[in-house]
Parts: sequence; C-alpha cells; structure tokens
Amino acid sequence: MSKAPKTVVSPLAPARFPDMLPVSGLRLATGHAGIKASSTKLDLMLAVFDRPASVAGVFTKSSTAGAPVRWCRKHLSKGKARALIVNSGNANVYTGKAGDNAVVTAAKGVAGLVGCRAGDVYVASTGVIGENLPVEKVVKVLPRVYKSLKAAPWHDAAVAIMTTDTFPKGASVTTEIGGKPVTISGIAKGSGMIAPDMATMLAYVFTDAKLPAGVLQSLLKVAADASFNSITVDSDTSTSDTLQLFATGQAKHPAIAKVGDPALRKFRQALDALCLDLAHQVIRDGEGAQKFIEIAVSGAKSTRAARTIGLSIANSPLVKTAIAGGDANWGRIVMAVGKSGQDIAETSLNISVGGHPVAINGAPPAGYDETPVAKHMAGQNVAIHVDVGVGRGKATVWTCDLTHGYIDINADYRS
Amino acid sequence: MSKAPKTVVSPLAPARFPDMLPVSGLRLATGHAGIKASSTKLDLMLAVFDRPASVAGVFTKSSTAGAPVRWCRKHLSKGKARALIVNSGNANVYTGKAGDNAVVTAAKGVAGLVGCRAGDVYVASTGVIGENLPVEKVVKVLPRVYKSLKAAPWHDAAVAIMTTDTFPKGASVTTEIGGKPVTISGIAKGSGMIAPDMATMLAYVFTDAKLPAGVLQSLLKVAADASFNSITVDSDTSTSDTLQLFATGQAKHPAIAKVGDPALRKFRQALDALCLDLAHQVIRDGEGAQKFIEIAVSGAKSTRAARTIGLSIANSPLVKTAIAGGDANWGRIVMAVGKSGQDIAETSLNISVGGHPVAINGAPPAGYDETPVAKHMAGQNVAIHVDVGVGRGKATVWTCDLTHGYIDINADYRS
Repeated sequence: MSKAPKTVVSPLAPARFPDMLPVSGLRLATGHAGIKASSTKLDLMLAVFDRPASVAGVFTKSSTAGAPVRWCRKHLSKGKARALIVNSGNANVYTGKAGDNAVVTAAKGVAGLVGCRAGDVYVASTGVIGENLPVEKVVKVLPRVYKSLKAAPWHDAAVAIMTTDTFPKGASVTTEIGGKPVTISGIAKGSGMIAPDMATMLAYVFTDAKLPAGVLQSLLKVAADASFNSITVDSDTSTSDTLQLFATGQAKHPAIAKVGDPALRKFRQALDALCLDLAHQVIRDGEGAQKFIEIAVSGAKSTRAARTIGLSIANSPLVKTAIAGGDANWGRIVMAVGKSGQDIAETSLNISVGGHPVAINGAPPAGYDETPVAKHMAGQNVAIHVDVGVGRGKATVWTCDLTHGYIDINADYRS
Repeated sequence: MSKAPKTVVSPLAPARFPDMLPVSGLRLATGHAGIKASSTKLDLMLAVFDRPASVAGVFTKSSTAGAPVRWCRKHLSKGKARALIVNSGNANVYTGKAGDNAVVTAAKGVAGLVGCRAGDVYVASTGVIGENLPVEKVVKVLPRVYKSLKAAPWHDAAVAIMTTDTFPKGASVTTEIGGKPVTISGIAKGSGMIAPDMATMLAYVFTDAKLPAGVLQSLLKVAADASFNSITVDSDTSTSDTLQLFATGQAKHPAIAKVGDPALRKFRQALDALCLDLAHQVIRDGEGAQKFIEIAVSGAKSTRAARTIGLSIANSPLVKTAIAGGDANWGRIVMAVGKSGQDIAETSLNISVGGHPVAINGAPPAGYDETPVAKHMAGQNVAIHVDVGVGRGKATVWTCDLTHGYIDINADYRS
C-alpha cells in the first residue's frame, strides 16, 4: 500500500551529523524489529537510565492523541523514568483497545529487562496510523537490543526514530551549573509538523544535570515555546508529537530546588539553544523544503500576539508559495498579518526582507528598488521582519517554503 | 511586473453561465477603464438603483482591511444605497491616504451622475495590492458607462469584476413573499478564498424585495455563515472580502418588519440557496482545483463546533493533498479533527467517504475494502462525512484539493 518515501536528502540538511557527547547514567541501543517494510532499516530505539532519571514532557494538544502519548501523560506526574522505548514504522494511533494493550506490552517487556515498573518506561511510536502495532516483533528483539546498550550510539538512535525524514537530527552541548560541567544531548525526528501516515515530531533531550521533575518541566515548557512551538511546516498537528527531557542526576553540581535559581542561567540558555537547533533541523527537513525562512515579529501587544502573527505568516500558503517563487510579495505578508486577528497599527506597519525595507509605514518605500530583495530571496535562507507598531511584544518563528515537492510527497505518498 | 494569469478554464466550471433575471429597479453597466494591463478586458462594473435601495453587507474580518471596505462599513449604518461601483485590476489596499482619496473620488464621480450623496455609493476594488489606484481612469470613463446602463447585462457584470477567476459566476432565482413574486440575482468573483495580488472574494446579490436594512442584514448574516463563511480554498483571508445584498423594494408583497415574519420563509430559503450556489462556484474556480470537496460534520457539541471541525479538515494541506492524490487517507482526516481543538468521542468517531465507511467507532472497518472508496475518490466530486459522536451539532463546508496547479499559480504569479 505504501510507496517508499523519497530518499533524496533535503537541500537544507546540515553538512553532517554532529559529534555528540555521552550523558552520564544513560545508555542507548537500536534494533531491527521488522516494523518498517525494509528489514534492513533500524526501527527501534531503547534508552535506559542506570538509576531513576527525572523526566518532563510536552505532548501534542490534539484531541485525537495516540495511545503512547496517553500512556506517557498518565505516568509523567510521578516524574521518574528508567527507560524509553521508541519504534518507527507504525504510530499505534487509532488502534482502539489493541493499541493500549500494545503500549503496556512494550513497557512491560522493557521493565522486565531493566528491573523496574512498567510505569517507569516511556513509550512512543511513529509511522502509519490505524494499523495495529505488531508489538510481538518489538518484544522478540528486545533482549538482544538490551544487551547492546552503549554510552553514545547517537547517530543510530537518531536514525532509528526516522520515518519520512531525509537525515538524522541531533545536537549536543556542554554547559555548567554552579561551576560544574553538565552535558545536554538530544535527538529529534520530523519532516513536516506532521505527516500522519509516516511521521510526527519526536524529540528526546537528555542531560546529566541533577534537577527535580518540576524544575525540568518548567525549563522544558519555556524551551519548547521558543523552539518546537515556534516552527511550522504545514500547520498540521500530529496525533503523536512528543518532546521529553530526561535528567540522570549524575553531574556534580549543588542541588537546585527552584527553576528561578540563578545557577541555572547558563543551563537554561544551553537547553533553549539545543532545542532551537533541533527544531531548526526539523524545518530543514520540511517536506519539499527548498528555503529556510525566519520570520521575526516585533511591535506587537505581547509575546503571544507576536508569535500568533508570526505563525499566521508562516502558515499562509500564499506567503509560502510566493517565497518558493522567489517573490518578495509584501501584499501577501500584509494579508497574513491581517488574518491573524491581532492588533496592529496599519499606518506604522514596517516590513523588511533580508534587511531591505519593502513596506514603510504601511506603504511601499519611495523609489523602491526590488533588486537587493530579489537577490536575497534567491538564496536558501530568507529572513522576514515585520513590525506592527502597537507594543513591545516580539517573537521569531521558522518555516519552509511550499513547493511542488510537498505536493509530490503528500499527494503521491500512498497509491 | 505581473505575468498574465492562467486563462485555462477550471475543470470544475459549470457548463455555461446561467440565464439570469433582471431585478426591477436595478440597472447595470460595465466598461474598460484601462486599470487591467489588457486594454480589451472589462474592469469596471456600475450598478445603479432607480430609487434608494435597502442595503446589507458583511466584510472581511482582516485587521488590514482595504480603503473601500472601510468606506462601505462607514456608510452601511444608514442602510441606503443608490449605486455600487467596482473596479478590478487594482485592490486599492495599502495605499495610505491616497487610497482613501481614491474611494471618495470614485464615489463622488458616481454620485454626480446619479444625483445622490457620495455616501450612498458603495465602492469595491480588487486586484494588485499596494499600488495606487489610477482613479482618474475610472472617473474618465464613468459618463460613458453611466449612459450604457441596462436592465440585465449580468454576464458582462460578472466578467468585469473578475481577476484570476477562470469563469464568470452568477445565479438567479424567483421566489415569493406573501404570494407575490420576488427575484434574486447575484454575481460573485474569487478564485481562492483570496489571492491578495489580484483577487479577493466579492459577491453582490440584488433583489426586488421590499425589506428594511435591518431585516436584510439578519438574512444576509445567516446566508453568509452557511455559504461564503463555509468555504475555503487555502485558509487565507482577503483584505477586501465583501458580500452585499441590495433590495430595490419594487416587488408588490406586503410590508415586512421583522426577520422572523413567516412570510419570509421561501425568500430566506431562496437567498440561502443562491448564496450557496455562488459560494460553490468560487470553490469550483479555486486555484489549481481538480476536485470539489464537500465535508459534512455531525455529532458535534454545536453548529459552531461542527463548522470549526469541518474547516480544520478543509484547511489541512495534508488532507487536501491526499485528496488530490485520490487517496482516502482517513488518518489525515483524524489528525485534522484532532487539531481543531473541539470535543470529540474518539471511540465513536465515524468517517465515510462517498458513503462508504472508512472508520467505524475510531478504527478501520473489519475486512475494509478500499475499492469503492478509491473509485469515489477518482471522480471530480468528493464527499466526506465525519461524525464525532458527542452531540447534535452539524455543519457542511466545501473546499477543493491542493495541487501542483496551486503552486504553479502562486509561486510563479509574479516574476
């Protein structure tokens, strides 16, 4: 039923997978469970924490969230994790009672090996919707996968969670808390905010910091808003979107009780930057993407208003097709600002593209010269700045263009 | 700067322009003002009422609405109209003070010929954004256009307001109020909910009914919600969208004071049907459209919730590309239902395509046979029904598929 997804790598992909650091107290393994049609493709990723890790998570707001998301939400309140199991090739969404049973079976399978409760095992699935997950294939290979746990097989882990992605996504950084070194490493998958047949956005971030679950959750929420919640490929929201942050507590820094602790400043910046890096990689793998687009909005009533305006521009098919065509079409940007429903000052609306003004105080600049703008639009990176002139709220969002490639992938995906 | 829009007629166009009836007390004329690049194209439409007509209107909710929309809103409270002037080729949006002046100049030009106040002249413009309207060209040809007023040059009137449209749109019906015959005739333009360079949705409906402006406004609001507010091509909202209803009062029926008057039943039905007919024609001219899609939602908490769910499906690029590919991809429909944020009962979600169930109580039917569904999807008309199982709210919305044609038109429109 499914045709093979395109295997050409996105033109916006990074040159190579980054060098990534191990996280003390975390081991990873991958395997072939045979869920993906191709038996040579990795489709299973297992993460095990030597000791209980603190955990935080943000999940899809969809009212049709899948069985694994419901499982994770249910157990997150305890704030502890011993393992994470992710399969690709099947999303285990809309599979009724069988879907819930499959989650329990997978969690129990891992728990038996690790020696923990099933509720301490986080589960995610990504792939085809509405087909039963052959969880027995997962259970069968688990012992062998468990035996192969290693400190840092990041590249394979990032590959094992891919579906329509054209490249694996990872990022790693060292920072400090209270003068003691701390590592953060994360992987993500997603090629479009979602393509619910064979995709979804998943991101897992691991650190050796020693932080209680409540602090992690606060940090993650802020990091997510400025990164994964500020990107869009096609405005569609997955039934399985998941971002989780695990902290093994192996770092040697002093105890942190509150998210407001000044000792967290550098860690917070590093986490925000790492989440943004991963989110940008998702956009760079956007279905059919030819251009990476940054939309900065300022002068709005609030940060939230600025983000709403930014996403209204980023989600507009007319703006995205104009950029695909290399057209600095400010009329379409004005339209998208208008449909956002946010307060703006029409007579002080300013728009620039690549730093070149295309609208000043709500009208084209006198003697407007399109040449430098057209040159900027011809490149792979397009930067749009919109000031709506009513306040101090600002936000930046990222998207890609809407091209024939998107239609090819999504109109011809199944046959 | 602009390339000529595609001139191939939409494959979903009606076989021919309908036979349309004159409306007593209304005369129409068209002209060439030379605003469109091609000097042979009609770009001016004038409607004059022999005596003051009652008027109602609903306009774009965009916060960047154009100068003509602001003019119409301002004068609508008086509820009277003597004339309507519409140009195509230039939207007079984001043209600052010059734009407001152009509206006044056009209104005064018409008022001088008709012998009325400028405020009794309604004005609309559709076309390129951000370029000054050469209103002097309008004023110059107005006397000649005024002399050519006739009872029912509907086809030319519908052509004169076209921009990227590939066919003129009109509908006409006779009904009755209190046993006396009443006529309703209307024209519309739009090819996409909007393409703000050279498009926008405009619709003008005229009747000889004798109805006060307050009653007209209530009738129009209801008719608009179930028609023009229930269609979407690409989720983008124009800066100029306008729907107006004019009543000349020449019909011989008894006076009507309230919108709840039972004598209005047939008129209301006829008006609703005519607005729906025009709205469907706009969808049939959707940019790149190859399929006409009806999405009926039932079982929602309210009518509003049902419409929100329907529009979430209709606006999903993943649903629209799946349909373009002839794929009855119910996973994408589930995703779009989920992202609407409305209450649903996951275990009693039912979806059918062309009357064939594709999901029963939240899962694929046992022994699901794709053959009849695939056959339905191969046709030009696609019907989707979704029951979300929580209430009695229902609504139907209409859209078209998302194809390479849309990308061609919008990515290559300017160069």
